[in-house]
Amino acid sequence: MHAYRTHTCAALTKADVGTTVRLSGWVHRVRDHGGILFIDLRDHYGITQVLCDPDSPAFAGVEKVRSEWVIRIDGEVKARAPELVNPKLPTGEIEVFVRDFEVLGAAEELPLPVFGDQEYPEETRLKYRFLDLRRDKLHSSIMLRSKVISSLRRRMTDQGFNEFQTPILTASSPEGARDFLVPSRLHPGKFYALPQAPQQFKQLCMIAGFDRYFQIAPCFRDEDPRADRSPGEFYQLDIEMSFVTQEDVFRAIEPVMRGVFEEFGGGRPVTPEFPRIAYRDSMLWYGSDKPDLRNPIKMQVVSEHFAGSGFKIFAALLEQEGTQIRAIPAPGGGSRKFCDRMNAFAQKEGLPGMGYIFWREENGETAAAGPLAKNIGPERTEAIRQQLGLGVGDAAFFLGGQPSSFEAVAGKARNAIGLELGLTATDRFDFCWIVDFPMYEKDPDSGKLDFSHNPFSMPQGGLEALETMNPLDVLGFQYDIVCNGIELSSGAIRNHKPEVMYKAFEIVGYSKEHVDAHFGGMLSAFRYGAPPHGGIAPGVDRMVMLLADAENIREVIMFPMNQRAEDLMMQAPAEATNEQLRELGLRVIPRD
Amino acid sequence: MHAYRTHTCAALTKADVGTTVRLSGWVHRVRDHGGILFIDLRDHYGITQVLCDPDSPAFAGVEKVRSEWVIRIDGEVKARAPELVNPKLPTGEIEVFVRDFEVLGAAEELPLPVFGDQEYPEETRLKYRFLDLRRDKLHSSIMLRSKVISSLRRRMTDQGFNEFQTPILTASSPEGARDFLVPSRLHPGKFYALPQAPQQFKQLCMIAGFDRYFQIAPCFRDEDPRADRSPGEFYQLDIEMSFVTQEDVFRAIEPVMRGVFEEFGGGRPVTPEFPRIAYRDSMLWYGSDKPDLRNPIKMQVVSEHFAGSGFKIFAALLEQEGTQIRAIPAPGGGSRKFCDRMNAFAQKEGLPGMGYIFWREENGETAAAGPLAKNIGPERTEAIRQQLGLGVGDAAFFLGGQPSSFEAVAGKARNAIGLELGLTATDRFDFCWIVDFPMYEKDPDSGKLDFSHNPFSMPQGGLEALETMNPLDVLGFQYDIVCNGIELSSGAIRNHKPEVMYKAFEIVGYSKEHVDAHFGGMLSAFRYGAPPHGGIAPGVDRMVMLLADAENIREVIMFPMNQRAEDLMMQAPAEATNEQLRELGLRVIPRD
Repeated sequence: MHAYRTHTCAALTKADVGTTVRLSGWVHRVRDHGGILFIDLRDHYGITQVLCDPDSPAFAGVEKVRSEWVIRIDGEVKARAPELVNPKLPTGEIEVFVRDFEVLGAAEELPLPVFGDQEYPEETRLKYRFLDLRRDKLHSSIMLRSKVISSLRRRMTDQGFNEFQTPILTASSPEGARDFLVPSRLHPGKFYALPQAPQQFKQLCMIAGFDRYFQIAPCFRDEDPRADRSPGEFYQLDIEMSFVTQEDVFRAIEPVMRGVFEEFGGGRPVTPEFPRIAYRDSMLWYGSDKPDLRNPIKMQVVSEHFAGSGFKIFAALLEQEGTQIRAIPAPGGGSRKFCDRMNAFAQKEGLPGMGYIFWREENGETAAAGPLAKNIGPERTEAIRQQLGLGVGDAAFFLGGQPSSFEAVAGKARNAIGLELGLTATDRFDFCWIVDFPMYEKDPDSGKLDFSHNPFSMPQGGLEALETMNPLDVLGFQYDIVCNGIELSSGAIRNHKPEVMYKAFEIVGYSKEHVDAHFGGMLSAFRYGAPPHGGIAPGVDRMVMLLADAENIREVIMFPMNQRAEDLMMQAPAEATNEQLRELGLRVIPRD
Repeated sequence: MHAYRTHTCAALTKADVGTTVRLSGWVHRVRDHGGILFIDLRDHYGITQVLCDPDSPAFAGVEKVRSEWVIRIDGEVKARAPELVNPKLPTGEIEVFVRDFEVLGAAEELPLPVFGDQEYPEETRLKYRFLDLRRDKLHSSIMLRSKVISSLRRRMTDQGFNEFQTPILTASSPEGARDFLVPSRLHPGKFYALPQAPQQFKQLCMIAGFDRYFQIAPCFRDEDPRADRSPGEFYQLDIEMSFVTQEDVFRAIEPVMRGVFEEFGGGRPVTPEFPRIAYRDSMLWYGSDKPDLRNPIKMQVVSEHFAGSGFKIFAALLEQEGTQIRAIPAPGGGSRKFCDRMNAFAQKEGLPGMGYIFWREENGETAAAGPLAKNIGPERTEAIRQQLGLGVGDAAFFLGGQPSSFEAVAGKARNAIGLELGLTATDRFDFCWIVDFPMYEKDPDSGKLDFSHNPFSMPQGGLEALETMNPLDVLGFQYDIVCNGIELSSGAIRNHKPEVMYKAFEIVGYSKEHVDAHFGGMLSAFRYGAPPHGGIAPGVDRMVMLLADAENIREVIMFPMNQRAEDLMMQAPAEATNEQLRELGLRVIPRD
C-alpha cells in the first residue's frame, strides 16, 4: 500500500464499498456525534467523510486531531444510509471507517480558519496566505488562473505561435511607466531594468525572422498601487506576428479569446464575432473607447432638431464651431423621477445638467413631457422621438457643446441608465475591437500637436498620409480589445520604416537626432531588413478577474503583495546587508 | 489577395504549378545567371526559389535588392526542369517567376552575413543578435528550445500537474548563491530580491494544498559567469508534489524526461528505465556522483589482492584505516603505450601515478605484463584478472589510499579511458538517479560535522535516525538526476517537521534560535498543517543544450547577455538618472 494514499479525497464512490483504502489530507472539520467522530478530510481534489467510533484502535489518536492537521488514515469504505447521502459531494455516497491513523503534520491554533466563509482582514490573509489559499474560493480562483493560462498556451501553439522567453534583466525601455532597477555587481554604479513589457524584444523576434511569437510574459512597473493592479509584477499574453495586417491580428486573437472565455465562462455567452468599432464612432455612440456592449444604449447626434429651435441654450451652442447635441435614449426611463435623478447625476459629474424629454400616454395618445419638449415644440420633439425610435414609457437625455467637454459624462450616464433600467445584460462577455485611433491630437490649451496614443504605430496611408494630410485626420493602425467595458489590451501594426518614423516624430516637433538618441536601438534593427509586423498583449490577470468575477486582483494571484507593495509573508522588501551594498557600489541615503 | 502572402516560403509544391501566388520574405541570396536573377526567398518556414527575367515588369526593381532585404513578390509557379529539382528543399520542385514586386524593408550593408556559416566574433553576434538569429543553426536551436518547453508543459499537465506563477519581486532566500537586489521606491533603503529559485514558494504551494505544482520558472543568481551558465537568469522545470515518497517523484518525472528526450533527441536512444544508484556506489563505480553511463567502465575494489602483497606501496597503504585499492578495468587498453599515457594523465592530475597491469598473449597463453604484476606475483594477478573479467588485449589501472584522495582523479581517468578506447557510446542519452546521499560529512581538517548537501531534506528514518544513529551513517531522501554525466537537478523529499529540522541542525551545532532566525518563515508555515512533500527542478537550458548538442549556453537562449553580464544590443546595464536614484534613496559610491 502506498505510504500516504491509495485514493485522493475526491475519488471514492459506491463502487469502492467494501475495500480498504488509505487517504491523506487536511482535517477540514471534526464533529462529535454521540461519541462517534466525523471528519471531513480534504485535499486538493475534494472531501471525503471519514468516521471513527470508540471501538476503532485509532480512536485515541483521532480524538486529538484539530482543524487543519494533516493526517493519514486507513479504513474501510462503507455505503452511507440513503438518507445520509450527500448529492453535492462526488464522494457523498460513501464514508470511510478509520482503522489506522497517523499524524503527518500537526497544526497549532490557526490565525485564520479555513472552514467557513468568515471575512478576515486583508493583512492577516496575506501574512498567512498559505492558509487563505486553502479556502475553497481562493483555491478555485487560483486553479482557474492556472487552467486559463494553460488553455491560452495551447490555443496559441495550435495556431502556429511559438513561445519564446525574453530577458528579465534588461535595459530600460520607453514604455512610459517607471522602471524597477537592478544594480549590477559586475558593473558597479550601473543598473539593469526589469521589462515593463517585452515590446522591443518581441519586435526584435520578428526582425530576427520568427514570424509568430507569444509569451505569457512577466512585466514589471513601479507604479503606485491601485485596486485592479498588483504592485510590481503582472502577466500579459504577449503576441507579435510578421507579414500581417490589422485584420490578420484580429483573426488570430479572436478565436483564442473567445475560446478561453467560452471554456471558462461557466456557460455565459461570448460575442460570436467581435465587432470592429471606429474610435470616433465609439466615442459618439458610447462616450468611451472602452464601451460596455452589454448595455444596448447607443447615443445619437440630434443637432439638427435643436438648431434654431426655441431651446435657446442649445441653439446658441450650435452656432459655435465643433459643437453638437447628442441624445442618450433611455427605453423604459419615461418617468419624471428617473429623469430628475439622471439630471442630478450629470450635475454631480460637473455638467450643468442633462436636458430630457420623456413620453407618456395622454388621452390614448403619445405625449412628450419635460421642459425641453415645451421649448422646442411638438414637431421637433416628434422628429427626435422618431429618430431615436422611442415611445410611451421611454425617455431621452441631451447633452450639448464640444463633444470633448461632455463625452466622458455622457458615457457614464449611459452606464448608469443602462444599469438602473436593467437594460445592461449581466452574465455575458461582450467583446469588441476599437480601431482607427487618430495618430495625433491637439492640446486644447497650447494648440500643440502630440501623439494621441502610441507613437510607434504605423500611420494608415504610411508616409504619403503624413506628408499630405492634416495630421489630425491621420489614423493609426492601432486597436484596443475591450470586454464588458474593460480594456484588455492595446495593440498595433508597428511602424517598421525608419523614414516613416522620422516623419511621424517631426510632425510633433522632434528632430531626427532626438529620435535617434531615444529609440536608436530599434531604429538600428529596422535598417537591416524588417518585416511588417504587429501584435497585442492582453492582460492575463484582467482576463482571469473577468472570468472569476473577482473585484480584487489579489484574488487571482497566488502570492500577491499588499497595496503598499510589501510581501507580508516573506517580509519583502527588506534591508540589504552592508556587504551587499558595498559589492553593488551603493549607499543608502539616510532618511530625515 | 492578402497584402503580404498567399503562402509561406515552405509551402509551394508541384500541385501549385500554374497558379499565381504572393510571397514575402528575406532575400537569402541573389544570383545572376545569364541576366536572369535567382533569389532564394527565406522566411521562418523555409526557402523558395524565385526568379526574374529581364522581360518581367519587376526586373528594374528586383535588380536593386541585396541580401536580407524584405520583399514581397507576386508571380507564377512553374515546375523546375527535372535536372534542376532540389530534393533537399520541400519547395525544390518549383520556382516562382516574378511579375510584381515591392520592397517591405530595405537593408543596409550587413555587419554579419546571414547566408553561409562563416564564424564571427561573439561580440558582433551578440550586438546584432537579430541577424545572428536569422542563421539556420541558431534559428533551429531557439525553435528547439521553444518546442521542448512546450512539450515539457504538455507532459506535466497531462500528468495532473498545474503551473503556477510564483513572485519574481520577493525576499532573499537561503539558496546559497548571491541575490540580485531590486531597490524599493515606496520603501526607500529597502530591497526586494529576485528569486534564486522558487523553492520556498513551491513548498508554500504544497502547504496551501495544491498537491502538484510545476513552473517553467525564471531563476536569478548573481554569480560570476561560466561557459555553461548564462549570467543572471536561467529557467528550470520547477516541480513539487505532496503526499509522495522519493519513488513517486521518480515515477512522475521519468516519463517526462524520457518523453522529451525521445521526442527531440533525433532518434538517439534514451534509457528505458533510469537506474537508481546509491551515492556511495556511484563514487565507488564511477568516481563521481554525476556518472556518464554511456561509458560502460565500472570500477571495483581489489584491496584483498594487494593486502600483504609484494607491492609494498599498496600493502602499506592498506594498513591504514579507511584505505582501499580500486581498479579501473580498461577492455582493449592492453598496450604499454596506452598504459603509460594513462599513468601520465594521473600524474598530471596530481597523483603519484596509476599502477597498471595489461594482458597479452605469450606463446599461446594469457600473460600479464607491467611492473605491478611482477611485484604481486602470478596468483594475485590472475585473481584480479578474473575478478575484473579481463583477458588478452585488456588492461587495468589501480589507485590506492583514502577514497576521497583519489576518487575524483579515478573518475576522470575512467572518462579518459572510455573515450580513448572508444568504449563510451555517443549518440545516446543515459540517465540515472543518484540516491541515498549522506546527510552529514566530517571536515577532514577540523573534524567538524556539516551538512553534505541540502539541510532541508528529510533524513531517512526521520527523527529516530537522527537521535540514534552515527550522523555520518544517516542518509537523506535526496537525489540527483544525471544525464550523460551532467547533473540536471538535485531534488529531495523535504523535511516538513519542525522538530526534525531542529534536531538536524542541532547535530551540526546550530541552536533552535539560530534556525528560527534564519528559516523562521518556512518553519512558521510548517506549524499549520504541512503535508509530506518533495520535488526537483531540472535545468531547462541544460536539457536544451544536451538535445541541441550545444557547447555554449548562449546557443539556446534567444537574447543572452555576454560573459561580462552585458546586453550588447540593448546596452544594459546602464547608468541610472539622478532622479531615479533620488526616488530610490540611493547614492552611487564613486569608484577610485
